[in-house]
Amino acid sequence: MNLILLFCEDFITPFDANSTSTHQVRLTGRRLLHIQNVHMPCLGDTLTVGLVNGKTGKGIITSLDKNACVLNVSLDCSPPPALPVTLLLALPRPKMLKRILQTSATMGVKKIVLINSYRVEKSFWQSPLLKPEAILEQLVLGLEQAKDTVLPEVILAKRFKPFIEDDLPTLAANTRKLVAHPSDAFQPPATSDNHTTLAVGPEGGFIDYEVNKFLEIGFDGISLGPRILRVESAIPVLLASLF
Amino acid sequence: MNLILLFCEDFITPFDANSTSTHQVRLTGRRLLHIQNVHMPCLGDTLTVGLVNGKTGKGIITSLDKNACVLNVSLDCSPPPALPVTLLLALPRPKMLKRILQTSATMGVKKIVLINSYRVEKSFWQSPLLKPEAILEQLVLGLEQAKDTVLPEVILAKRFKPFIEDDLPTLAANTRKLVAHPSDAFQPPATSDNHTTLAVGPEGGFIDYEVNKFLEIGFDGISLGPRILRVESAIPVLLASLF
Repeated sequence: MNLILLFCEDFITPFDANSTSTHQVRLTGRRLLHIQNVHMPCLGDTLTVGLVNGKTGKGIITSLDKNACVLNVSLDCSPPPALPVTLLLALPRPKMLKRILQTSATMGVKKIVLINSYRVEKSFWQSPLLKPEAILEQLVLGLEQAKDTVLPEVILAKRFKPFIEDDLPTLAANTRKLVAHPSDAFQPPATSDNHTTLAVGPEGGFIDYEVNKFLEIGFDGISLGPRILRVESAIPVLLASLF
Repeated sequence: MNLILLFCEDFITPFDANSTSTHQVRLTGRRLLHIQNVHMPCLGDTLTVGLVNGKTGKGIITSLDKNACVLNVSLDCSPPPALPVTLLLALPRPKMLKRILQTSATMGVKKIVLINSYRVEKSFWQSPLLKPEAILEQLVLGLEQAKDTVLPEVILAKRFKPFIEDDLPTLAANTRKLVAHPSDAFQPPATSDNHTTLAVGPEGGFIDYEVNKFLEIGFDGISLGPRILRVESAIPVLLASLF
């Protein structure tokens, strides 16, 4: 937690997002425990904070006990720039999903579409980790790691063909469209400033039918070479290689 | 497991690494279970195999039952090229160590030195995951993912200062020397074909004293920018950005 992410309900003085004056927040639960056990601060110490979907700044500790930590916060910095990418990701197995959501948020992805694919096990779609509050939990951890405040949007697309045929052409319009797939026929990723729509398959990869559906609507294939990476490594490598 | 890694003791016909003729191997345990449950092959099907520290090739299934899988293997391809990097890594917490060893092996790192650092918890050095057989297990999983056969060397350096002062200057001689650390003063990573010695700190980063020790012996600092990545993401991003 390199930044403590604040939500409107944390504020105990009337809050106006457009004001630069100081406000008081009161933290309990996970964030209080983290402050106590990791930061181990004294009264008057300063912590890095940020308002969800807003500015970052500093919080000075004015009270700290086992029930709560009260901070005087001032928010006047912009969060780090986002990556210009929409990530289409074949739904990973639940344990991996947690880490991938965190990593994607940390790296600055702001739109993630979890899609179906032949090699996605049907049971993955029943995972409690897909509930909005569970997704939010992972995204918050990822943002706190990156000192970012802007929550990514996560969309679930449980049916492959209708998503690709009906929704994706609009979603990906006017972007660089790439599908990552291990194939000798595909080029390695190249850097660009353009907004990019990047499709990444499941463990085992997209099946040929699925790759072809992407190619049919104007996606280009890219490949990371002969070494096949696990999805959780492929995503940081792709994001580092594309921008 | 995109390749089944074979060891000399798997061979049931006399084995000569320099011969290109066909040999028989007999697999049990983890690899048998994987073949049965994931590949689900028939007699006569072909699997991708490779001899540890040797060539890759194909194995034709000649017998398969609940006790063993017997393959006729021929090995005539080279494994994928290695990355020209020596990775100096502050010992991560055990769970993360497993994933990082796998990822590093998958990406083609061939020398990993696990080093101490102020922010490495002392207990991490007692982890059973540092036993040679436990390290080997993770490296094999990483190689199998990448269709590689060449085992990385893993060295443990439990004392920071003697390692940096006495061993590192020789280890890093004639290489590009880089220490990754979030700092506005440091440049982003740049690609090169040169052999590179790359130091990566623990969660929370190297302390200033440690960064300075690297700089004193000729390392250059590099930074991935304002977003602070977890070590398990930083490593793929750094490796993708440096070569």
